[in-house]
Amino acid sequence: MPTVLAACSARRIVYRPQVCGSVQPQDFAVQQVATADPAPGRVQLQPLFLSVDPYMVRLLTGQGSYFGREEAETPMRGRVVARVLASPLPQWRAGDLVMGESEWAEMGDVDAGALLRIDEEAGIPLSTWLGAAGHSGMTAWAGMVDIAQPRSGETVVVSAASGAVGSIAGQLARLRGCRVVGIAGGAAKTRHVVDDLGFDACVDYKAQDFAEQLAVAVPDGVDIHFENVGGAVFDAVLPHLNRYARISLCGLVSQYGAPSQPMTLRHFDQILSRTVRLQAFRIYDYVLRRDEILAELVPLIRRGELRYRESIADGLEAAPAALAAMMAGNNLGKQLVRVQH
Amino acid sequence: MPTVLAACSARRIVYRPQVCGSVQPQDFAVQQVATADPAPGRVQLQPLFLSVDPYMVRLLTGQGSYFGREEAETPMRGRVVARVLASPLPQWRAGDLVMGESEWAEMGDVDAGALLRIDEEAGIPLSTWLGAAGHSGMTAWAGMVDIAQPRSGETVVVSAASGAVGSIAGQLARLRGCRVVGIAGGAAKTRHVVDDLGFDACVDYKAQDFAEQLAVAVPDGVDIHFENVGGAVFDAVLPHLNRYARISLCGLVSQYGAPSQPMTLRHFDQILSRTVRLQAFRIYDYVLRRDEILAELVPLIRRGELRYRESIADGLEAAPAALAAMMAGNNLGKQLVRVQH
Repeated sequence: MPTVLAACSARRIVYRPQVCGSVQPQDFAVQQVATADPAPGRVQLQPLFLSVDPYMVRLLTGQGSYFGREEAETPMRGRVVARVLASPLPQWRAGDLVMGESEWAEMGDVDAGALLRIDEEAGIPLSTWLGAAGHSGMTAWAGMVDIAQPRSGETVVVSAASGAVGSIAGQLARLRGCRVVGIAGGAAKTRHVVDDLGFDACVDYKAQDFAEQLAVAVPDGVDIHFENVGGAVFDAVLPHLNRYARISLCGLVSQYGAPSQPMTLRHFDQILSRTVRLQAFRIYDYVLRRDEILAELVPLIRRGELRYRESIADGLEAAPAALAAMMAGNNLGKQLVRVQH
Repeated sequence: MPTVLAACSARRIVYRPQVCGSVQPQDFAVQQVATADPAPGRVQLQPLFLSVDPYMVRLLTGQGSYFGREEAETPMRGRVVARVLASPLPQWRAGDLVMGESEWAEMGDVDAGALLRIDEEAGIPLSTWLGAAGHSGMTAWAGMVDIAQPRSGETVVVSAASGAVGSIAGQLARLRGCRVVGIAGGAAKTRHVVDDLGFDACVDYKAQDFAEQLAVAVPDGVDIHFENVGGAVFDAVLPHLNRYARISLCGLVSQYGAPSQPMTLRHFDQILSRTVRLQAFRIYDYVLRRDEILAELVPLIRRGELRYRESIADGLEAAPAALAAMMAGNNLGKQLVRVQH
């Protein structure tokens, strides 16, 4: 569904922040807004792909503090792969391919200082610069390699293992010689995690015998837990932690959209009795290490040694439904929206 | 109540591990047992002071994994200051003063390798080698100085602030230029923490307006939280954590004796959104750094710059009641038992 760009107006997605409990497509709307030449220091972009990420729900509900609480009828923002349309700055020229953060829109101007250049010679798909070679891959690297520091022979558990971050995090540990056990919801996802992503095992948190499945999968205990979920999934892993286990806290997707819902942990005391380090992190603190991180990820992607899935929705107007579907667990791997063909 | 030592028998305390919910003195008994010359590699001790510590409750209920689950009618063990009665080894001689771990008994033989010599020239009371200059002080140092790494100008919260560890932990942060806020139960303890220990403020977790008191006491948020308690006290601190806050997890005394009681946290997501590191530790990992740690603590104690209280119960048979009273919150500072005069 190609979109014809009008010279003086473009569509964008706005949201109303009454979102709570779950994301509903009707909390969003499409607006037609006037466009203008970029202001000094800013570059005009045409987004090609939008990144759809769980953290956005925290933003919508004012729960997270990434950007502070948003006001009513707010333009939705996120990471994009884009083409430069117009630039008053010599370092960016019309036609350049970039990563950045912009409104969910057909056109928009952004602060030039926050743009990253896409290496068109790298030989990986454009969409992947938002996934395995983008913030998802960088998040996986930060939380697994830098925070958890896996050593050969250790047992690693990854929750939301079929997701954009978990799928990469587990493979990075496996490449370092770890036994890697995923947690995912439903037979299709758990099969994908083992058969396509190469994890050693994957257990189904929706199964009646989840606790037993997990116990069988980690006979030597757990040295590293990469946490994307929280709640009952997190609690189920705690009894298996080994002495000096590390928990890399990447997300708490089970809590998103429910700011006042308490988290009940029957086994929190394991963190004390097993002398555990639990460390949260955020990808914003790793932006300056992008070159170092991509120097590992991009060659692995090009050689097919880091496997990943992308779920791509078509058209700007499909973005809210894609976010809602991802939060309901109805996707595999990285969720993207293709804005322009 | 001096005790006459029989040459061939001595009293000791045993416990029955049905303890659950709370410690009751009737779960313990006094036994008269035969004594013998120490076996090869072992030294015979006469304990002078017993250390009474919250971790013991976890041991009693089989909850902790410090020593593994104990069996029925088990001799109670703990850290002691003792005099050497007999030693087959040249490095220990009758009359030497030592710290070690032994049964709660009037006499007992211990592995000589685990004994530490008490510096009788240091000019501090004998009992203090179990408190501020013993494992309590070392635990405070490990969790505050090594794990949390306080920097001048930061705000530090310490729960169980009038206790043996919390009282020292807070002062160590204050000596490093931090604003230190204690949490304690009741007016007498909160007054003691401010007036005697020199904390900047102390809030009463038993007060109706605990949450408001805490908010007022930490206007700039919390950079370090030294956690001894868990449960609702821990949850109350979470909303005040600053970006990159550190939580030093020393104990969860609110959970001890109730292994199956879940911990309900309304604000766990703050650990993620504030990019927090939560790290448990145990003093066993710091034994080799004892000289380094005591090099800071002992001069401070001698000069009166590190203040502490000791609650001393009299007589071996008083030890179970002292443990129960401490767990009920009926003591200030370090709880000890004087076995011999």
